[in-house]
Amino acid sequence: MPVYLDHAATTPMLPVARSAYVDALGLVGNPSSIHSQGQQAKRMLEESREVVAASLGAEPIEVIFTSGGTESINLGVKGLYWARQTGGLVPGAGSGSAASRPVVLIPGGEHHATVDAVEWLARHEGARVVQLPVDSLGRLDPAVLAAALELHGASVALVSLLWANNEVGTVQDVAALAAVGRAAGVPVHVDAVAAYGYLPLSFAAVGADALSVSAHKIGGPVGIGALVVARRSVVEPLIHGGNQQRVRSGTQDVAGAVAFAAAAALVPQPGGERTEFVAELAQLRDRLIAGVRAAVPDAVLRGDPSPAGRLPGNAHFTFPGCEGDSLLFLLDMQGFSVSTGSACQAGVPEVSHVLTAMGVPDDEARGALRFTLGHGTTAAEVDALVAALPAAYAAARKAGFADRVPVSAPRS
Amino acid sequence: MPVYLDHAATTPMLPVARSAYVDALGLVGNPSSIHSQGQQAKRMLEESREVVAASLGAEPIEVIFTSGGTESINLGVKGLYWARQTGGLVPGAGSGSAASRPVVLIPGGEHHATVDAVEWLARHEGARVVQLPVDSLGRLDPAVLAAALELHGASVALVSLLWANNEVGTVQDVAALAAVGRAAGVPVHVDAVAAYGYLPLSFAAVGADALSVSAHKIGGPVGIGALVVARRSVVEPLIHGGNQQRVRSGTQDVAGAVAFAAAAALVPQPGGERTEFVAELAQLRDRLIAGVRAAVPDAVLRGDPSPAGRLPGNAHFTFPGCEGDSLLFLLDMQGFSVSTGSACQAGVPEVSHVLTAMGVPDDEARGALRFTLGHGTTAAEVDALVAALPAAYAAARKAGFADRVPVSAPRS
Repeated sequence: MPVYLDHAATTPMLPVARSAYVDALGLVGNPSSIHSQGQQAKRMLEESREVVAASLGAEPIEVIFTSGGTESINLGVKGLYWARQTGGLVPGAGSGSAASRPVVLIPGGEHHATVDAVEWLARHEGARVVQLPVDSLGRLDPAVLAAALELHGASVALVSLLWANNEVGTVQDVAALAAVGRAAGVPVHVDAVAAYGYLPLSFAAVGADALSVSAHKIGGPVGIGALVVARRSVVEPLIHGGNQQRVRSGTQDVAGAVAFAAAAALVPQPGGERTEFVAELAQLRDRLIAGVRAAVPDAVLRGDPSPAGRLPGNAHFTFPGCEGDSLLFLLDMQGFSVSTGSACQAGVPEVSHVLTAMGVPDDEARGALRFTLGHGTTAAEVDALVAALPAAYAAARKAGFADRVPVSAPRS
Repeated sequence: MPVYLDHAATTPMLPVARSAYVDALGLVGNPSSIHSQGQQAKRMLEESREVVAASLGAEPIEVIFTSGGTESINLGVKGLYWARQTGGLVPGAGSGSAASRPVVLIPGGEHHATVDAVEWLARHEGARVVQLPVDSLGRLDPAVLAAALELHGASVALVSLLWANNEVGTVQDVAALAAVGRAAGVPVHVDAVAAYGYLPLSFAAVGADALSVSAHKIGGPVGIGALVVARRSVVEPLIHGGNQQRVRSGTQDVAGAVAFAAAAALVPQPGGERTEFVAELAQLRDRLIAGVRAAVPDAVLRGDPSPAGRLPGNAHFTFPGCEGDSLLFLLDMQGFSVSTGSACQAGVPEVSHVLTAMGVPDDEARGALRFTLGHGTTAAEVDALVAALPAAYAAARKAGFADRVPVSAPRS
């Protein structure tokens, strides 16, 4: 088996989640059916919702199950945008002239689910997207957000931002940023897909209006996620139909929810419960970072270098004078699964828009490689990667840069 | 175990699908990752797509995996609507004045995923929904569709219609209806969720632009479905992000696709392959229909009474002078799981909009009960239901009508 260091793309299912899933797959009945079999399915669904809610510091009624992080983000961002237009249901035509609150504020370097959703709102629903600058570590300063809210005033529909960056691992001060939004009366959506399971999260404590997570990033199944919507907040649905959930239609996936809950029951909590896993992971991460720096002194750690400022499983570097793709392939041949950035962007020959937003020049950004650790990662695997890296780096440098066009245009 | 006669709400997973699912859950790797583990996952995904495509008479490139039937329908209907507006990307404001092709044609009695999606387009995107009359069996006459297309001319965005009705089981002449749409140059979306697995379907032969199906209706898992989009047809995405599929973003569910494919490999085909299951089912259905008629002579079969004109697993009746809900609860207490209509509407105390569209008076429609048979259903189960029905009907008649308000307003 290869050494899997791409847990941020997807992490293997936890045995406990897989076992719960397999048991639940034998269930018969649609939770919307009113006969006893349906009601039994509904009970299992609602018990799962309670567990997922508790893992996020939210109330069960606030948890909307979706098909995953991307749908959650689309529902959170578009749903808040639509609900914030005057009358709630009448956005502007494409020109933007008719949207009463056209401005969407996002920091640079957001996940493409957010970037592409807001670009669609701009092309299609009259939105005006304002990208806020982040610093060289990828952090958004709350003062920058406050200034933008002041500048754009009543025309702001919403703010959307990552809790932790999926590529470089930088953790935002989400509570401070959400407080700034709240003070301005502007709803805040938080993309917590990368943070969930790796940082203690509390939706209630942060005070955001909506928050997106995905089950397969925490050891649950692919194909289910959640959008948390605060009781006070209004989100316009994205998928219409049987109204199985207040802002999301579609037959609810009971087995998926049961498996999601089994994984959610293990995520770290703000009170310090269940944080052993992430403490161990941070040690492995620091071992990897120190090892890479010793083995390849030219390598530059990207994202926040402080242990508390980055995800405990994330080590992201740029390697000068080579393509990240070359390194990836050379390491793959030696049995290491790593990534150049987001799996959601893999295969697209462009430099990372996250690194660009952090001010990293294109020629440096081309050498990006992300190592993400997770459950099952061992010190021996970390050491093996570090041992393999110098030869791979030398070979990748020799290969040099491939021609690729364009190198800097963001994918739209 | 109760006798499960609600297969249209959801059918239990087929053992072969469950087994394939469980095996695939052990897989490590995101199919968008470019390392070997990711590429292995991608191969399994694409092999599954080929099987699903073959089951639908479509090409693999035409199959977009979604989270299920409701998302597929929303993507098909909204996506075609948006793509058909001038310029493709600039719909009208709420008033409808700015939509270049505002008219959406649907027959009466469509599933709520369609009804609610088009009502949203009307409230939100300037659409004008024109509901076409169906006959007393729930059939749309191709001449009625042709007349409507003639009347509304270039202002028609799309037609959407059920292949087979999920409540009363009536099968439409989809090929003839799609041909009428094609002749007018208007795209046609077909909701084949209820038909899939029970009728031989060929997307290519029907000539529609888009077609929606769900895996859990054919013995695959909940949480995955597909929208088939013809190569020639343009659909605007509903969920944006990493562009993992041409019109649908989000991490692809490899295990779900593998399990979906395992079930899809068994569906009946137009050439007559694998039609034994549906032939047996039709015999059981006819046994049930004859049994109910003999046991409760007052019961009225709804939907097309001809064996070929209705789904092989569907028997839908109205029972005069009682509430379908009462009958459902009484049968549930005796261990029979049945439905008053769509599970997606269960618990909503209204008469079925399907029956209303077919001209059934409210007082008759209130006594609706749907029996849907599927894999595992036995003649003994059918006979047991028939034996239990007279006493349940007598008790339900005695209970009479509950007060419910409103009885006729369609749910919006």
